[in-house]
Formats: sequence, structure tokens, C-alpha cells
Amino acid sequence: MSGNIFGRVFRVVTWGESHGVAVGAVVDGCPSNLPLSEEDIQVELNRRRPGQSEVTSKRMEKDRVTILSGVFEGKTTGTPISMIVWNRDVDSSPYEKFRYVPRPGHADLTYFLKFGHRDHRGGGRSSGRETVGRVCAGAIAKKLLSLFGIKIRGHVVRIGNVISEASPERVFSYKENSVRCVDERAAREMEKLIKEVAETGDSIGGIVEILASGIPPGLGEPVFDKLDADIAKAMMSIGAVKGVEIGMGFKSAEMRGSEMNDEMRFKDGRIVFTSNNAGGVLGGISTGELLKVRIAVKPTPSISKSQKTVDLREQKDVEISIKGRHDPSIVPRIVPVAEAMLGIVLADHMMLSGFIPRRL
Amino acid sequence: MSGNIFGRVFRVVTWGESHGVAVGAVVDGCPSNLPLSEEDIQVELNRRRPGQSEVTSKRMEKDRVTILSGVFEGKTTGTPISMIVWNRDVDSSPYEKFRYVPRPGHADLTYFLKFGHRDHRGGGRSSGRETVGRVCAGAIAKKLLSLFGIKIRGHVVRIGNVISEASPERVFSYKENSVRCVDERAAREMEKLIKEVAETGDSIGGIVEILASGIPPGLGEPVFDKLDADIAKAMMSIGAVKGVEIGMGFKSAEMRGSEMNDEMRFKDGRIVFTSNNAGGVLGGISTGELLKVRIAVKPTPSISKSQKTVDLREQKDVEISIKGRHDPSIVPRIVPVAEAMLGIVLADHMMLSGFIPRRL
Amino acid sequence: MSGNIFGRVFRVVTWGESHGVAVGAVVDGCPSNLPLSEEDIQVELNRRRPGQSEVTSKRMEKDRVTILSGVFEGKTTGTPISMIVWNRDVDSSPYEKFRYVPRPGHADLTYFLKFGHRDHRGGGRSSGRETVGRVCAGAIAKKLLSLFGIKIRGHVVRIGNVISEASPERVFSYKENSVRCVDERAAREMEKLIKEVAETGDSIGGIVEILASGIPPGLGEPVFDKLDADIAKAMMSIGAVKGVEIGMGFKSAEMRGSEMNDEMRFKDGRIVFTSNNAGGVLGGISTGELLKVRIAVKPTPSISKSQKTVDLREQKDVEISIKGRHDPSIVPRIVPVAEAMLGIVLADHMMLSGFIPRRL
Amino acid sequence: MSGNIFGRVFRVVTWGESHGVAVGAVVDGCPSNLPLSEEDIQVELNRRRPGQSEVTSKRMEKDRVTILSGVFEGKTTGTPISMIVWNRDVDSSPYEKFRYVPRPGHADLTYFLKFGHRDHRGGGRSSGRETVGRVCAGAIAKKLLSLFGIKIRGHVVRIGNVISEASPERVFSYKENSVRCVDERAAREMEKLIKEVAETGDSIGGIVEILASGIPPGLGEPVFDKLDADIAKAMMSIGAVKGVEIGMGFKSAEMRGSEMNDEMRFKDGRIVFTSNNAGGVLGGISTGELLKVRIAVKPTPSISKSQKTVDLREQKDVEISIKGRHDPSIVPRIVPVAEAMLGIVLADHMMLSGFIPRRL
Repeated sequence: MSGNIFGRVFRVVTWGESHGVAVGAVVDGCPSNLPLSEEDIQVELNRRRPGQSEVTSKRMEKDRVTILSGVFEGKTTGTPISMIVWNRDVDSSPYEKFRYVPRPGHADLTYFLKFGHRDHRGGGRSSGRETVGRVCAGAIAKKLLSLFGIKIRGHVVRIGNVISEASPERVFSYKENSVRCVDERAAREMEKLIKEVAETGDSIGGIVEILASGIPPGLGEPVFDKLDADIAKAMMSIGAVKGVEIGMGFKSAEMRGSEMNDEMRFKDGRIVFTSNNAGGVLGGISTGELLKVRIAVKPTPSISKSQKTVDLREQKDVEISIKGRHDPSIVPRIVPVAEAMLGIVLADHMMLSGFIPRRL
Repeated sequence: MSGNIFGRVFRVVTWGESHGVAVGAVVDGCPSNLPLSEEDIQVELNRRRPGQSEVTSKRMEKDRVTILSGVFEGKTTGTPISMIVWNRDVDSSPYEKFRYVPRPGHADLTYFLKFGHRDHRGGGRSSGRETVGRVCAGAIAKKLLSLFGIKIRGHVVRIGNVISEASPERVFSYKENSVRCVDERAAREMEKLIKEVAETGDSIGGIVEILASGIPPGLGEPVFDKLDADIAKAMMSIGAVKGVEIGMGFKSAEMRGSEMNDEMRFKDGRIVFTSNNAGGVLGGISTGELLKVRIAVKPTPSISKSQKTVDLREQKDVEISIKGRHDPSIVPRIVPVAEAMLGIVLADHMMLSGFIPRRL
Repeated sequence: MSGNIFGRVFRVVTWGESHGVAVGAVVDGCPSNLPLSEEDIQVELNRRRPGQSEVTSKRMEKDRVTILSGVFEGKTTGTPISMIVWNRDVDSSPYEKFRYVPRPGHADLTYFLKFGHRDHRGGGRSSGRETVGRVCAGAIAKKLLSLFGIKIRGHVVRIGNVISEASPERVFSYKENSVRCVDERAAREMEKLIKEVAETGDSIGGIVEILASGIPPGLGEPVFDKLDADIAKAMMSIGAVKGVEIGMGFKSAEMRGSEMNDEMRFKDGRIVFTSNNAGGVLGGISTGELLKVRIAVKPTPSISKSQKTVDLREQKDVEISIKGRHDPSIVPRIVPVAEAMLGIVLADHMMLSGFIPRRL
Repeated sequence: MSGNIFGRVFRVVTWGESHGVAVGAVVDGCPSNLPLSEEDIQVELNRRRPGQSEVTSKRMEKDRVTILSGVFEGKTTGTPISMIVWNRDVDSSPYEKFRYVPRPGHADLTYFLKFGHRDHRGGGRSSGRETVGRVCAGAIAKKLLSLFGIKIRGHVVRIGNVISEASPERVFSYKENSVRCVDERAAREMEKLIKEVAETGDSIGGIVEILASGIPPGLGEPVFDKLDADIAKAMMSIGAVKGVEIGMGFKSAEMRGSEMNDEMRFKDGRIVFTSNNAGGVLGGISTGELLKVRIAVKPTPSISKSQKTVDLREQKDVEISIKGRHDPSIVPRIVPVAEAMLGIVLADHMMLSGFIPRRL
């Protein structure tokens, strides 16, 4: 499985299993002289952590990051930044019964078929816990980008049939609630819906939007490493994500060219677009407008409702019910992970295009 | 712009501008001993070609591919396969007026901002003509995959508000019509809609679905180079694509876990899934089920309707109307391009995972 | 500094500074089902360790490796293998006086010029301690290769003007002595020479030869990723290495084609070469003969003899003498590092060429 | 054979066989706005061409390069630069007898074993003709570097036992003679030696030194993508090269630290080294001093002297004599190829380190 490295210049490696000794990440290529502390990373890890509200998992993961290299006297040295988060208080016993029984909607069967041997405890490498490394690396990317005026912020725009009607303007300043939805009316309904779904032993999906402001025009390397192409890969690489769109996305299928095209005009000597249906990318290169990305998040596969599956050792059909402290909707918790991945892509392209130097 | 290389083992490089001397591709890493002729590639190029029906561009591009290297006595040698398609009968004069006037919805402005100097003739590198190289490389990938039982086929599932109701079963055997839609009733409506839109000097978007059968379980390199992540990048790297989904995609946002999860059971000693909402990928690894990808295609940005933009040299606002033989909907012609990109991703992963050897 | 990742399929990342918290490595892409224990790695780390004899540094580095991920129930799972070695008992105070005073022959000045900010303690990232990560990763590569009949062994063939006259046959079975020289007479002279040099406060260089047997014909990806090209990069990336040769190397400059060319003949139905001046590689592809690599190792730059350099803060010329427990010759200790790098290259190419599957 | 791509940002792809339709290269990632003409490339191709003197092959290769893309109105656009050189007047008939008879010292056998099927005509992909693509790409790199004050120049320092005693200072200004040796006395002896060797139906090896001046301190990405490591790979990837050294190279094996270390002092407010044994690289990062690289070139394997080999089809031992217009010493003709490879490495690192912007 040699796919745990992401990026070309600002490069990220993640490692670790859900119930192994630890999880972590290495960032290779971060510029030197970036002020960086464990607290910068911890604040993002805390946003990712479960147990923060009634609508997320009640597991307590008191994740604390330790920086092992690459930072000296409070600043990065340009050498690899290795970070570790120890796995604590894990109880693998509930997973014993799934050792040879792949859970529907999980990667249990595919890992088994690909590798033959897998760490089944807590989902192993295919667990959502893998995203701890992404969030650590993303925190560094976001800190770096912030020095260059780039802000990234995500929010939940849909859970089941509840739709947020928040304007993009409010996203960067809203105070996070339990479902990370800017529209407070919708937030209350989402919370209610998630609770209802949880009570039936089920789970529910949703949509997350991630915005980035302050991006200079010129990011992206056509024709294959287009900015939106790299973003699509980054987002689709997050577990549970089944779709990605930029700007009007799938809505553009219903539109005319005269509606979709963003017109331009001069304003105070600068070129401005009169709309942003493109979502900040044209021909794979950033326009300088707000970057708009949306991802479809499937319902958490772990549900207590009875499901049919197979026992690989006994070679027979079985029914299972997955008990435990699982998120009835993973959507709100994906927000910091998606922000992290967008941050990593943007940091990489900002360096590739020369907007961020190798040495601050 | 160092982003013109795609893939890790089966690697593709494309080059060329719309009105330059030629366009082409190099495939590095194709196994040796694959029977390959120019005709194998030409057949796919012909599918991509405009001028095939009333609903596509009336430009005549009699593209003929020449293989320059890597094939000896009818079989690949394992060395780079270089292919060239000469650009003929190009008339760049209509583009002269857009040299400093970026067309809305096109990459004119972003290329100008990124590179300072661009070949504006026919859209240059950001033209749809760039996909000739992708189709050439994809033809090799498809030929290779076919030897291992993998078939790829795309079709149009939506144009504007017209929706195809074709079942996946029919896709692999349908005879291509002018809009590449399997559902003949919808095909007629799509054709009618495209003509209506064209008459108003406008264009329209749509959705393409690409299916692949015969994929073994085990393709994909989590956590970043997941099969669906690489597919998302490949698809989003195609000009005009604004969204990608796998399996239920954005519909999964509205679903419960109990609906979304694909259950498993034994049938004749083999594990089968009772549904395929995942679209053939779980945890970034192929399940062996039908691979289902959908892409959102925006309306062609070249429209004859009047549009507001800027003149970069004169530094003033202007209005333009783009005349010429442009596709009123690029959706049907994206089908072979999307198939090519999926082929390239699958060939690369089949080799990475060892299902296709370096030497046939 | 985004250059801490090596390899294409069997990929290695190393991190850590000499006097930081820890050093380590991540191996991404190791096949699943490889039996692997910390002891497999420890045995190679022990060979690298200083303080093993009178002719190496008297520092005691009781390095102990811990595997943090990627191994479950004694076998690799195919996921990233993260390894850590804590830095213990480091005393950074002697380095305080070199914070702004670059030591001749070291990377102090170049790191300072490139990054502006560096961890000067113990040489930071440019210390020989960085090779701990290489040896950890290389131990896994060697374990993997051994299952496929490939053995790697290095030995010292020259220290100063003392030259070993060992035949390659003896290399794989010799018992390591203090200078890792197969020719015992030469070994005694080398030991004597190193002691003499050390007494004068100086250091001395040498040559290491690394051999690999059991390599199948067919490894190497011309024209750039040739087997010998990747080996040359791997070797030259080791600190202190100033030259690399394959087979006859620089001696081939003096030879005629009729002397250099290795003739072939059939023996028991197999093709054999009657000599191996090529050193096991022709056209960048392994021949199946013994792989022969030699590297030139410069004398350790840390010497107690007085040297002229500059004080960057005071902006003046100064003279320094570097005290401490430095190796008077690093040559014997480079042997396991060079073996590790060769192992990593060979494991990567064995996987790329399909000789080692993704799953054992 | 997926190894035909080199570089990370300034990336080069080469393709083509000796007696195929054409050979060529694609450069992906060259900055936009670089003035570039076919003549810039042709001048380097002419230096590579055989038939230039009595001591090189008498084949006439009137190679003319055509730029197919990436240049518009005399300047690069930042898109891929595709270049082609047609193969003309090739006579493949003399190679028919070697179709199944691997020539000693050539890659015939290893290509056969790796790929099963190979283009044997003129050596196919493993021919020295493959370097045409390298020289084309290198010409662009050198043009680009020249704008930033970097000059690259190679010369022959040894043929057989004849050694040049030229000082580095003269290298950049010398007028090329038939053996590309700066020391005219040695040049005459080399020429005499090559003729003598040729008359006996044999060939002879030598050493080439390549120098680069004007390099800023700070190039190189430790710990694996060190400047010298990437140079070592680039050089060893050239056919016939069996060794690479930087600075004192293998001579450092005989030196003491007190001799090898380059001392520093201030001169006119700048730090200068009082010697350059390091050859311009410390810790894998450029020092700003003259970059010194030496490569060992083996004798041309094609000799008319009788040699023993095998017939793969007949499965028997045979003797062959290779007639034809082969270079009795390839050493002088490797000079422009080695310069090209060094140029490619330096252009890539200059861009990676941010010294050359993406847009001029």
C-alpha cells in the first residue's frame, strides 16, 4: 500500500492504525522559519476530536500531539516535521467478532482481499482515526497559508433533507456549533434529525462545503495537476466521501453557457468577475475569486441496525449489529479533515507556483 | 506548467496546442508484447472527432495518429510510445480579436495571469483539442485492459433537464447515437434540446456516466492514492468537468446507513454484494463490482450570445460574441475522453497492484 | 527541504535531528505478510552503532527501535511501517560554540545559507545520525529481499593507502572485524593507520564495496531510472560519499573494449558471462551476475587539528579545534548504511519489475 | 519501462529508438517567457553529432530539431515543449545478424531478458542515439540557466593512459578540438591513441569532467534529493558511464580530514573557501563554489575484434565481429550529453529552490 504520501513540494506522509501504538504524520518540504508550536496543531486536533457534543461519538480521545523533529527554538528548520499522537484507552475486544466478518459499508473486505492480513482492531488503517495525521499536517499548511493571507473554512450545508441557507460571507466568521452549520435554524433541525436517526440505530449522510479566500490567481498546473483536479483527489481520498464538486458542480449540468459563464469587468483598475459559478478555478488555474468546494459524505457505515454479511472463516452468511459509540453522522467531524486536505493542496501549489518561498 | 504527466507506472505525458504544429502523447511504462497498431488508436480518435453529427461542432478534424516509437513489428517493446497528430487546416484569424480579450468561462484570463505569454490561437493549450493526447494514451490503456477482461464504456445520462433512464446493463452493448445516450427516447429529447439551445446562440451542460466491468478486487492504494481518489483527479482534470461522484455520489447525502451500506452474502461459494451503492470501491479499494463514475460537464463556454468581458490591452470593458463552429454541448464528445482517463487510471493501478505484468 | 522521500513503490521517508527528540523512518509500500519484528531491525541498528571498537567513536548510542505501525501479529499488513529511535543522553553544550561558526567540511554553512535557521546541535539533520532512519528502512528491505534469495554485504576495501585484497567470494561469509575488512592482514594495517591518524587529531577516508547476489536479470528502468543510476543516487545521498562506481568503474577509463566487454557462452543450457567487468548491470538493467558497487568515503570532517573558518555573527575569521568522541574514520560505520541504501533500491526495483508481489 | 521521465519541476521525457521513425523529448515545466528558437537547440545537437572528426564515427547524422509545441512567437509559453528529430538514412540490415545474438558490452541481452521483444535495429532504445532527446532538453535547460548566470562546460580529462593537465580556469573559454581536451599536448596524444586503437579494431575509455560556474549557494534537497545525489543519478543514467565523482571523489579515500576540509575566511565581506575539494557541494547543498563532476566512460562496446557470445535462437556459442562506423572512443561525444544532464539537474533544482521563477 504505497499510497500514503501526498503532494509534490509540500509533501505529507501519514501512518498508523486505529488501535495500534500511535498515529502520526511527517511533513516534508515545509519552508524554514515558520513559527510553529504544538499548540498550533493541537487546536485543529481538538476540532477533529469526538465527544464534543450530543451528536458526535461519545468516545473520549484526548489526543495530544508531540512534534518530534523539524522545529527548533519555535520555528521550522526546513527539515521534515514528524508528529505523533499516541493511541490511548483503546478497547479492541468489541472488534474481535468482526475479525473475519466484514462490516457492510466498511473497507474490511477490500483490505482483506488486497492484503490477506489486516489489523482489524478499530478498523485498523481504514479507520477514520487515520485522519489524525491529515489534520496534524493540515494544521501546519493552514498556519503557513495564513501568513500569505489565505483562510480556509468549512461548514455543513446539508444533513439528509435539511439544507443550510447560509451565505458564503458568514462562513469565515461563524462560531462553530455542534453540527458546524452556519444557518442556525438548519443547525437545530440537523441536530434533531441526527438524534432521531441515532435512536433508530441508523446513521445519515450530508454535504460539506469548504471555502478558501485570499488565493492569488495562478495556482494550478494544467493539464493534469490542475488545482481543481488535485483538490478532487484530496477530497475523494477522505474516507466516506463519495462526490466532489467545484463551484456550481453538478448544477452546471442544467445550466446554459450564458448563465454559467462568469463575466468580467474592470473595477478600480482591477479585473473582477460579476459572478463566481466557476468556484474560483478556470482551466485548472485559480482566478483569485473565492474557492468553493463541496463534498458528499455518506452515512456512517457503523450502525446498530441488523445487517447481512458473511463470515469468511466459517464461509457462511451471518447477520450483525454494530454496537458502540459511533457517530450517527460523521459529516460535522469531516469539516476539519476537509479543511486540512484543502490546506495541504493549497500549500503545495503555493510553493510550486512560487508564491510561498522555501525560506520565510 | 509542470503538470502534464499523469500516473505512477503506466505514465502518460501530453503536449501540444490547438493551433500549433501538432498535438501528441507519450506513454511510458506500457508492458512489452502488447499487440498495437495505429488503427487501435485511430478508432478512439474517431469517436472523439467533431463533425460527426448535427449536434456537435461542424469543424472537420481529420485527425490521423502516427506512432513514432515503442512499437516494433506490431507489438510494444516496453519503451516509450510516442504518438503524434498533426494539426491541419487551422484558421487562427478569428482568434486574433481575443488575443487580449479573455472569453468568459474559458481559461484565457488565468493562463494570461499565470504565464504572461500564451498561445491564444484556438485556445492554445487550454483548448479541448488537448484531449487528443489523452484519447491516444487512453486507447492503449483500454487495449491493454481488454486483455485482462476489463471493459470501459461511457454514456450521457443528462443534458439540461433531460434525464436518461438507461439501466447499466445496456451500456456496454448500445450502439452510439449522436448524443451517446443509451435511452433512445431521452436521446431524441436531448438532441432536440441541444438544437434549440444552439439556435439561441447558447450552450448547455450535462452529466456523463462511465462504467468499468471486470475489475478485480484489490485495486487502489490507500490512504491518498485510493482508486476513487485517482479517478476523481483524472476526471476533474478534463476541461469543463465541475464535479465527480462515485456510486451514489451526492445522493448518499440524503441516505441512511441502512440504505447505503451494501450487504454481502455467499452465492455459489463466492462473496457477492446485494447492491452496489458504493459504485465498486470501498475504502479506496475496488470491490470487484461494477465501477460507477459520474461527472458533471458545464455548458460550452463559447457562445454567440453577447457577453461582457475586458480588453486587457485597452484596459476597458467590452462586449463580445463568439462566432464559429463550436459544440452547443460538449457533453457527448467528453464520453471518449472520460473513458480514456478512466482507462489510464485503471491501467496504472492494475500494474501497481501486479495484476498486469511488465511483460505480457 | 522536500527531499526526504526515496523510492517509487517501496518508498522510504526519514526524519529527525541528531540532538532532537528522536529520529525515525516510515516505509510505505512494503508488501503485506512479511514476518517482521523489532529484532530484525535492531540487529542492523547494532551494526551501525558507534562505540563498538577502538577505531570508532566512543559515544555510546544504545539505540533501540520501536515499530509504531504497519505490523500486526508479527507480520506486515501492507500499511506504512513507522519506526522510531529516541535520542538519549545527548549533550548539546559542546555545539554551542559552533552555532554561528561553520565547521569546515560539514554542512553547517550550506544549511545556514539555505534555511536561515538550523538546529546546530550535534549537526542537526545533516548529522550522520540521520542514517539511523536509513538503516531501519534498509533492514526491512533486506529482510524482504532475503526471502527472494538476494543477499547484500559490504566491506571496506581501502583506508588511506591500505588496500584490501579480498576476493568477492569471501565477502558474504566473513566475520566482521573492527574495520569491516575481509582481508585480515589489511584489516590490521587499517586499524593501525586509523589509530595513528587519530593520535594526530586527524581523520582518514577510504573506499567501501557493496555486493549483492541473487539478483534476477531484468531489474532497472531505462533510460533514466536505470538500476545503476538509482544506486548512484542512493549512494551519493549518504553523507561523506564523494564517488560511486559500478563494476570496473573508473578503471574502465584505461581499458580497451576487448578487455572491458564481458563475453557470453552457454553452460548447462544457461547463458553465463565469462567475466563481470560490468558489475552486474548492462544498459541499466541487471544481468543476473554479482552486483558490484564501490563508494569513496571522505575523511570525517570533525578533527581536533586547528582549522580556519568564520564567525557568522561576529563577521570575522576564527580558528577552531573540534574536540569530542568523533570517528577518526567513518568508513567502517558506513558499511551498514550503504547496505541499507542498496537494499532499499533493490526492494523498490524488485517490486517495480514484479519480482516481488504486493502481497506475500 | 516506465523510467523515461526525469526531474521534479523542470521535467524531461525522452522517447525513440535508433532506427525507428524519430527520436524526441518533451520538457514539462520550463518557465514561460524564455526566448527560445530551434537554433538554440540545434547548436547543441550539432556538438553531439558524429562525423565531426577523424576520431569519431563517420556516420553522417544530419539531425535537425523541430519544436512542435510550447513556444509561441519566439518565447516559451510555460506549456510542454515537444521536440522531434527524424531518423534519416538508417540502414538496419547490418543489425539483422545480431537480432538473436547479443553483442558483448551492449544492453542486447538485458533488454531481451526484461522485455522479451525488442527493436534490435541499431541498438533500438539502448542506442547512444537515445541521447539526442537528452541534448535537446539540456539545450533548453542551459539557455534558461544562462539567464541566471550559470555556465556549464565539459571536457575530456583522460583517454586510456593519456591525462589532461588543464586548469579549470581554461575550461570555460577553450575552443573545442576533435577530442574536446583543453590541454593541447594531451589532445594530440589522445587523438593519436584513439587512431591506434581504432586500427587494431578495438576501442578505448576515458574520463570526462563537467564544470558549472555561477551556481548560488543553497541548491539541493537533503537528505535524499541532494544536489550531488541527483547529479550522480543523471550521470550514471548515461549509457557507457560506470562511475561518478564530485570534487576530489575517489582521491578523498587517501586523504586526511585536515587536507580534505575546505577552510573558510572572509574576503571583502563575503565568505570564501580557500580550496574546493568538496567540488561545490557540502551536505548535498551547493556552496556557491565551482561545481566539479567527473564521470568514467567505458570503451565503446562495438569493436571489430572477434568476440565470443551466444545465439539465443540456435542456443549455441558463436563468435562475432562488429563492423561499421562506430566511435573508437565515445568519450569526446559524451561531453555535450553530460553537459545536458547537468543542465537538466541544475534547472530543476534552481526552480525547486525558487531561484528561477515559474514565469520569467
